[in-house]
Amino acid sequence: MSVDIYEAMSTLRAVRRLRQEPLPEDVLGRILQAAAWAPSGGNVQPWRVVVVRDAEKRRRLGDLYRPQWVKYRVGAVEGAARLEGDARAKQQRMLEAADQLGERMGEAPVILVFCFNPSRMAITDIDLGRPTVVGGGSVYPAVQNVMLACRAEGVGCTLTTLLCYEERAVKSLLDIPEDWYTCGFIPIGYPQLGGHGPISRRPVEKLAYADTWGAPF
Amino acid sequence: MSVDIYEAMSTLRAVRRLRQEPLPEDVLGRILQAAAWAPSGGNVQPWRVVVVRDAEKRRRLGDLYRPQWVKYRVGAVEGAARLEGDARAKQQRMLEAADQLGERMGEAPVILVFCFNPSRMAITDIDLGRPTVVGGGSVYPAVQNVMLACRAEGVGCTLTTLLCYEERAVKSLLDIPEDWYTCGFIPIGYPQLGGHGPISRRPVEKLAYADTWGAPF
Repeated sequence: MSVDIYEAMSTLRAVRRLRQEPLPEDVLGRILQAAAWAPSGGNVQPWRVVVVRDAEKRRRLGDLYRPQWVKYRVGAVEGAARLEGDARAKQQRMLEAADQLGERMGEAPVILVFCFNPSRMAITDIDLGRPTVVGGGSVYPAVQNVMLACRAEGVGCTLTTLLCYEERAVKSLLDIPEDWYTCGFIPIGYPQLGGHGPISRRPVEKLAYADTWGAPF
Repeated sequence: MSVDIYEAMSTLRAVRRLRQEPLPEDVLGRILQAAAWAPSGGNVQPWRVVVVRDAEKRRRLGDLYRPQWVKYRVGAVEGAARLEGDARAKQQRMLEAADQLGERMGEAPVILVFCFNPSRMAITDIDLGRPTVVGGGSVYPAVQNVMLACRAEGVGCTLTTLLCYEERAVKSLLDIPEDWYTCGFIPIGYPQLGGHGPISRRPVEKLAYADTWGAPF
């Protein structure tokens, strides 16, 4: 199977309604290989992924996720209410899909749990007196490779970080060592509906500046 | 041009020796479009990129980078000295290329400066008493898309975060507002030498576990 890289990027939408059907071993293998190829600071690869297929562990992850989604959705509903017309209808469709995921994350055939070890990272922005993100530079490229590989394989996926609120329980469930932490949860599976397709993003002109902040590219 | 996604991922190596030749506008446009396609938390896209082509600004970024690289390389040299045989030789070739970048980053035809705004992010791991990375989940997928697009376009690139140590000076140079911060610097340009090619990564078996930490996938 060959999928053009721009085709994959431009149709990588969050797919939240997943079939319970297991993923073939070779498909899952290619998705994980994509993660392994990602660059990281000093090529240290300070991340690991726990591939959760065990039904009981998935159920428990789903049980931990449900109340976190319920809490988070309050803000999302308020946000949708401030929109109008098409944007509002679209946001409401997203909410319905997210509600289904909130209810049933544990039914996804695979949940990928990304972990990282900060002691193996050079976090260059840690002392700047503002939230640090640089550690993520050695983890989320691998996460993005996973998502793009899912797209290439026709597998639905979406990244959530809400389960970080339950990190202690997740670490206990999966035997994650003291010095490793959670940073991304990706339920994956074949799509119930159309799966991948068009995405809504800001145009480049709103995101890229020429030489100086605010100067249109 | 069509590049298979796995082909791009598996040959995306850091390219640090860059030609000074400018990048065609359409090539740069596709690279930035790739960034814009990336997913982010709540689809907020809390990042912007300053595309630095102005020669004087590039020179000043290079001047800020040089001493940071010199400081960082001490650890890298020590690390290389602990290696043996092929691994050591390889690390030393990497160091030579990195030294050239350290000396001449300002000569890259384009330097992409990624910025983020933490107030537009839901940083779910900010109160866990350990370094947070989750904010990076809304930025580095865009960075990875840029790197993959560079690979697809035959453009060399490497991500550095060392210039975060000079964030104040960079913000002043590029007029970055108070509430936006820097998180990634990508000098890009056509390769002086072979450019993209084979990469060294841990095998999937060392990175992925089955259901429980440490259980081989």
